[in-house]
Amino acid sequence: MRFVRFKTPDGHPALGARVGDEVVNLTELGLPGTLDELLRHGAAGMASAKAALEKATTRLPLSSVQLMAPLHHPHKAFAIGLNYIDHAHEGNFTPPTQPVLFHRYPTSWVPHGVAIERPKASVEFDYEGEIVAIIGKGGKYISKENALDHVAGYSLFNDGSIRDFQFRSSQWMWGKNFDRSGGFGPEFITADELPPGVVGLDIVTRLNGQVMQKANTRDMIFDVATLVAACSEGMELHPGDMIITGTPAGVGFARKPPVFMKAGDVCEVEVEGMGILSNPVIDEA
Amino acid sequence: MRFVRFKTPDGHPALGARVGDEVVNLTELGLPGTLDELLRHGAAGMASAKAALEKATTRLPLSSVQLMAPLHHPHKAFAIGLNYIDHAHEGNFTPPTQPVLFHRYPTSWVPHGVAIERPKASVEFDYEGEIVAIIGKGGKYISKENALDHVAGYSLFNDGSIRDFQFRSSQWMWGKNFDRSGGFGPEFITADELPPGVVGLDIVTRLNGQVMQKANTRDMIFDVATLVAACSEGMELHPGDMIITGTPAGVGFARKPPVFMKAGDVCEVEVEGMGILSNPVIDEA
Repeated sequence: MRFVRFKTPDGHPALGARVGDEVVNLTELGLPGTLDELLRHGAAGMASAKAALEKATTRLPLSSVQLMAPLHHPHKAFAIGLNYIDHAHEGNFTPPTQPVLFHRYPTSWVPHGVAIERPKASVEFDYEGEIVAIIGKGGKYISKENALDHVAGYSLFNDGSIRDFQFRSSQWMWGKNFDRSGGFGPEFITADELPPGVVGLDIVTRLNGQVMQKANTRDMIFDVATLVAACSEGMELHPGDMIITGTPAGVGFARKPPVFMKAGDVCEVEVEGMGILSNPVIDEA
Repeated sequence: MRFVRFKTPDGHPALGARVGDEVVNLTELGLPGTLDELLRHGAAGMASAKAALEKATTRLPLSSVQLMAPLHHPHKAFAIGLNYIDHAHEGNFTPPTQPVLFHRYPTSWVPHGVAIERPKASVEFDYEGEIVAIIGKGGKYISKENALDHVAGYSLFNDGSIRDFQFRSSQWMWGKNFDRSGGFGPEFITADELPPGVVGLDIVTRLNGQVMQKANTRDMIFDVATLVAACSEGMELHPGDMIITGTPAGVGFARKPPVFMKAGDVCEVEVEGMGILSNPVIDEA
């Protein structure tokens, strides 16, 4: 199934199932109002959503609703650095031997279709197309062998980065957390609709239609199962936790000359079978 | 004023004011149940708390209540790395020229008096005594000159660290976020009870009664005002956000031979006029 969180034409937030270019309002049919809550209900929650979708008699045009970020309030949002060898090399980093973890606050992203913001404080606003794995079944010290059983599904992410702030010190968090600097969406896709661990999918980032990043997810240094196992080592994972799996080569700051995003640009992240996350760029007010 | 969050003798969570060795249950008097919510009410909230305290006729013995962490659900918890020159040097780091920011999840700490846990995955469990600044008035791009107006008060923190995981990659977050590896408390002290910016206070960490860290807050590389301004640069701060201000020299991993915490130890962080945060150490179950 493909879930969207959205505002109905009369402004109420709801959880929906997307089918083609239509949306079924699941919340109206008695399901939870957020994906976060649905995931906490586990397999039973998913089964209820599927049953509700099958019985639904009315659908809204997708174009009539305003999409929100797939998750309402994730507690943990791990972002993974340097997870493609070519991207590590382009930034003059040694490819990591262990997963590189940092955090993004939910204030740092906007939904599909909403503008990401180049801050007043910097012009070095860069894109990073990525896939997000979203935890369904919690756990701690999860083995790599069982890890994919803990992933409910996937979405897309633009890990927008303010490069001068990212590299102000050894720790990248500052430049990765500017308000509304990243994108998350357009929808949540259950794992059964995609190859196990989303392996073998083409991932592309376009800026104003021009391809800036193009790779395949099989080139991740640490695959999704390894990342889930790592993030659960010492830290209990819960339903709705996010793992933003890292970006391939082609980012703006490593180009000669560098390319940064500016007001009027449109940045798109597309993954085979996962749709397109598109965000226009504006200057911070 | 000095606020505690606690469980009443019959198990209800509440917000209290501590006076000597007694606690006034403010929630019972109509105040919010959490400091988080009180802070969102701003100056009016603080005035109501003060008025309620003055009128209160009953008090509980402090020893009869179970303390909880001062904040219930902070959204942002910035931790500051390498903020004392001697500590940077002992770890063979260059003292930073810009604040070094990373994040701690609320799952990574416990209240005063509750055991911190040495994880199964590592024996390198280290202490770091610190002061936390807690935001009262939100804001973005806050100037250093106005920054202390945004700080509602302070508390103590043990930034417990799993060193081998902290240094597994360039990003420290993993080793700083093991479940229940840090301590936060015992209480929240309004800024008016302490010197401006908590400058000039002795800070001491003891392990089993032995002094391991001893310094003065005037030796911070970046003072509280600078840290508040920095954390608000690009990221809007909200009431209840935390800035964990960094630790002085004397940590365990930099000692020869190294000293790490183990089951049966007791770690205390004490700051002049701010009390003692004490946590026993147990092994993860």
